Amino acid sequence: MEKKIRVAVLGYGNIGRAAEQAVKAAPDMQLAGVFHHDDCLDCVEADVMLVCTPTREVQKFVTVLAARGVCTVDSFDIHGQIWNLRSAMDAVCRTNQTVSIISAGWDPGSDSVVRALLLALAPKGLTYTNFGPGRSMGHTVAAKAIAGVKNALSMTIPLGTGIHRRMVYVELEDGADFKTVEAAILRDDYFAHDETHVIAVDSVDALNNVAHGVNLVRNGVSGETHNQRFEFNMAINNPALTGQVMVSCARAAMRLKERGDYGARTMIELAPIDLLPGSTENLVKALV
Amino acid sequence: MEKKIRVAVLGYGNIGRAAEQAVKAAPDMQLAGVFHHDDCLDCVEADVMLVCTPTREVQKFVTVLAARGVCTVDSFDIHGQIWNLRSAMDAVCRTNQTVSIISAGWDPGSDSVVRALLLALAPKGLTYTNFGPGRSMGHTVAAKAIAGVKNALSMTIPLGTGIHRRMVYVELEDGADFKTVEAAILRDDYFAHDETHVIAVDSVDALNNVAHGVNLVRNGVSGETHNQRFEFNMAINNPALTGQVMVSCARAAMRLKERGDYGARTMIELAPIDLLPGSTENLVKALV
Repeated sequence: MEKKIRVAVLGYGNIGRAAEQAVKAAPDMQLAGVFHHDDCLDCVEADVMLVCTPTREVQKFVTVLAARGVCTVDSFDIHGQIWNLRSAMDAVCRTNQTVSIISAGWDPGSDSVVRALLLALAPKGLTYTNFGPGRSMGHTVAAKAIAGVKNALSMTIPLGTGIHRRMVYVELEDGADFKTVEAAILRDDYFAHDETHVIAVDSVDALNNVAHGVNLVRNGVSGETHNQRFEFNMAINNPALTGQVMVSCARAAMRLKERGDYGARTMIELAPIDLLPGSTENLVKALV
Repeated sequence: MEKKIRVAVLGYGNIGRAAEQAVKAAPDMQLAGVFHHDDCLDCVEADVMLVCTPTREVQKFVTVLAARGVCTVDSFDIHGQIWNLRSAMDAVCRTNQTVSIISAGWDPGSDSVVRALLLALAPKGLTYTNFGPGRSMGHTVAAKAIAGVKNALSMTIPLGTGIHRRMVYVELEDGADFKTVEAAILRDDYFAHDETHVIAVDSVDALNNVAHGVNLVRNGVSGETHNQRFEFNMAINNPALTGQVMVSCARAAMRLKERGDYGARTMIELAPIDLLPGSTENLVKALV
């Protein structure tokens, strides 16, 4: 029996709890602890840390952990800043001979893998990623961070061809001014680029549902042949999928580290077989 | 401007012609020749050879080419024999410091990548791969190889939950006995495991259409959360997609060889980014 991978979880919100469950369900892993944001990370005894903090706190934690030689996995989800995070972490990881898998969720994450694969299958053409309807965790966290917001829910509504509406339901703090809150949300980088509607409600809890989905479509050209059509659909529990993706990427991080292949990677830079437990022989026989 | 990858094509049936078109459309490749089965392969001046021969002739050619240090890509499609081919080619490639990508089509091939990814997203559950309706190239070639068959077309009909019917349309040689041909087809390993109907027709050409498709579905469990639903659909020109996949894998073969990462690989063992032209930075920014 091979030694199990010791996987710890940092952050205990929706994703942290789901990640813990996925670690426990993995045949080749053992849970090495659950940490909270303000815990001292010097006492971490783990091969891989799943960093399940809000996106804007990710870089601080993964940098500290990588500097200590711990592999990390995060689901950093601000698309325009992913390359910067990868560059910074790549340097830290190479210096400290470790591996960091970044932006490992479903988008960015497994959807990115599907987009890369479809581009290889039909190099010319258009891909549209249509999200929802569903709760965006990143946008919900961003809305909750606005002054005057007691609780929030940001729903993503697909309008087709990759265009989305954001429906932001907010429960205000006592005395908060709705117009001020609305303006702050509309200015936030998470919301500034989409049609966004802010709606005050009495109870966000009464609306919450972590279901989400995607409809990713490509119509493209293979060689000289047009009208090659591809479609990927999901209807999923959002934190459960994100936690599971992080756990599968923890496995890949360990495989890369064992090969001496140090650095930071996004999911399109990982071979899918490295996400899975078992031998190359068994996986090739079962899946190819 | 980087030096272009010199890619040659061996075999000039449906897939060979499509592969030639995809090489010509690739911005980072140049066509290094089209070879026929009986050409002398000693004169090949190419970085990568796309071996587009019938499946049962693949191993002979890729072995000879790899022994000469040429990278190869094939779309060997007998699922039960893929691991044996990989094992044999892995040894030849490591000895000769080259790379062979095997079973690089859409199934085996890109569908295998989707199956691996979905298993990583929801480790427990069932995946069903439903093919067609469409012409199976592997089965059509197998039927054409039967004595007494002048021309053939094998259609794959999905019956759901991964069960398929084979409709085999045969045009007989003068004097061939239908019952003898039918029995030989039903005994062939390509057909022995599925419900198969053999039908004599006057003209196979009148029926031919290279359209094909897949509906790949998984309902599984992420962590402790059930009912995670995924679906991948394609409606494609079959040889055009196969040729394109082979060309994208030629690029991956060169990347691996340049890194000194020699051996044989199936597509689930490749990082999707290696299938694509361009820098890591540009691809991460565009796709992740």
